[in-house]
Amino acid sequence: MTHSLWQQQIEEAISKINFNKTPNDLYDPIRYSLGLIGKRLRPLLVFCGCDLFNGNTQEIVNAAAGIEVFHNFTLLHDDIMDNAPMRRGMPTVHTKWNSNVAILAGDTMFVKAFELVMMVPEKYMKVVLDLFCKTATEVCEGQQLDMDFEKQRTVSIDEYIHMIKLKTSVLLACSLKTGALVAGANADDTEHIYEFGKNVGIAFQIQDDLLDAYGNTEKFGKQVGGDIISNKKTILYLEALQLANGEQRKQLQEIYDGVIKLNDAEKVETVKTIFNALEIHQHVKVLMDKYYNSAVSHLDLTTASTQKKKVSLLFAIS
Amino acid sequence: MTHSLWQQQIEEAISKINFNKTPNDLYDPIRYSLGLIGKRLRPLLVFCGCDLFNGNTQEIVNAAAGIEVFHNFTLLHDDIMDNAPMRRGMPTVHTKWNSNVAILAGDTMFVKAFELVMMVPEKYMKVVLDLFCKTATEVCEGQQLDMDFEKQRTVSIDEYIHMIKLKTSVLLACSLKTGALVAGANADDTEHIYEFGKNVGIAFQIQDDLLDAYGNTEKFGKQVGGDIISNKKTILYLEALQLANGEQRKQLQEIYDGVIKLNDAEKVETVKTIFNALEIHQHVKVLMDKYYNSAVSHLDLTTASTQKKKVSLLFAIS
Repeated sequence: MTHSLWQQQIEEAISKINFNKTPNDLYDPIRYSLGLIGKRLRPLLVFCGCDLFNGNTQEIVNAAAGIEVFHNFTLLHDDIMDNAPMRRGMPTVHTKWNSNVAILAGDTMFVKAFELVMMVPEKYMKVVLDLFCKTATEVCEGQQLDMDFEKQRTVSIDEYIHMIKLKTSVLLACSLKTGALVAGANADDTEHIYEFGKNVGIAFQIQDDLLDAYGNTEKFGKQVGGDIISNKKTILYLEALQLANGEQRKQLQEIYDGVIKLNDAEKVETVKTIFNALEIHQHVKVLMDKYYNSAVSHLDLTTASTQKKKVSLLFAIS
Repeated sequence: MTHSLWQQQIEEAISKINFNKTPNDLYDPIRYSLGLIGKRLRPLLVFCGCDLFNGNTQEIVNAAAGIEVFHNFTLLHDDIMDNAPMRRGMPTVHTKWNSNVAILAGDTMFVKAFELVMMVPEKYMKVVLDLFCKTATEVCEGQQLDMDFEKQRTVSIDEYIHMIKLKTSVLLACSLKTGALVAGANADDTEHIYEFGKNVGIAFQIQDDLLDAYGNTEKFGKQVGGDIISNKKTILYLEALQLANGEQRKQLQEIYDGVIKLNDAEKVETVKTIFNALEIHQHVKVLMDKYYNSAVSHLDLTTASTQKKKVSLLFAIS
């Protein structure tokens, strides 16, 4: 109930941003990007962080919209870099227009994100902006590491976790903490809620990798093994490389390097056979649970009410 | 004397920014970009705006560095969009590395620019950031208009002036006003100094176009007629199209469209013959003087001391 109200307030705040401006080639793609409605997870987390500590959510609605605009800006630029043709079932901006349009529309969204985040009550402006800038820098670093990893033969588990933390989790953590800061939460609470968001985010990314290989296609809605087919160095693959014997490692690398040529179905089956032999699912599940449990314990340590903690947890894992 | 001291303080502030970080492919290009020492015109204008109204320049040195970082970020992205191979006599970032590196390094610089601009005394933070964000949006709009104009057959003089105002002048105006704001200047003074910067900037862009066709090669250091050779729609060309008779207009357009094929020297000569027949130099000079005079009158209207006004004027036109 509350969440659908929040969702409505977020859509309203986003629709109120004045992007009905010229030049058209700058503002059309911005409206297009923000119109591709996603889950609005990050703004919802801003609301959640604020509500947990009994803040007034009216005070963070623009900042929440700003974090969504920021997230969409990163998608525009990431999609250019990753050469991604589709996003949320629609052509990406650089495909529908061109890369130059996507670069400049992204830059303009980034400015708007700052303007919106600045709209928190003035006494919280500096602390919120400091967090936002730190986070934005980390997101850029995470994207660079992700691109670097594509070119590396192997990546350690720690390096991988560090990358997904920067690329994805810190923005979730920043969203929660922004809400908490404006609610006037104390330093311990804002730090615990940040750690909650960071650890949940890492657990989620790990779960994403797991579901891609082991998910129920119908429920998950994606082709099982898509990451294997596209040679993506997921945590499953990296964990497998660590645990594999010489023969298994050679086989895995030759499949991912394209030395061993297989059709998609054979490739998924062969790789999963190795994963299964190494009990990768279980190993990765242990790792995921470690981050999930850490998240829960940080949430527990906050002074928020038990009821609100329960709601947040359900929300974060839904 | 003062300016060389300011210059030194600016270089020191820029060199103190912590870009000695990893990933290397993110931070190497940033250090490279900021190491290509330009005139540092914009940070000098921040100092100038502050000093005009007797402010403490120590309070704006980081914001000045931030505006330089912002300017360099726009160069990184503009150079991708304009496909420019060289900048300040060195390969551009997207040439030396690649476009993805230039996009992401640019984004990271943009965040740092905000962080530095935020370092003004807290009581001025909101007003300075509002101005900075408004300006950053306008700079993006100006770049989009510039790209749009490349594809249009003709552009009115007013449209051209509007484009150069957004693409270049507003950042000079913002620099001066930022300094003035932190000096505690009153609303009239900050507005006049903004208009001074904006009009000087427009006059300078017009002068650039003039010098390209009519400058002294030795003094100017560039090939005379470079803009004509590259079919650039400068204000001279646009003014000529307005004033030309049917035959002249047809000839100009056919030369710029490549229908009439000439070698570089012939092209420059033929176009300049038309420009001369239409007295384009004089017409454009009148326009330039209009903006220059408007700039001077705005400077005059400020309450700064006559001595400081003189220094600023000399500085702005040097």
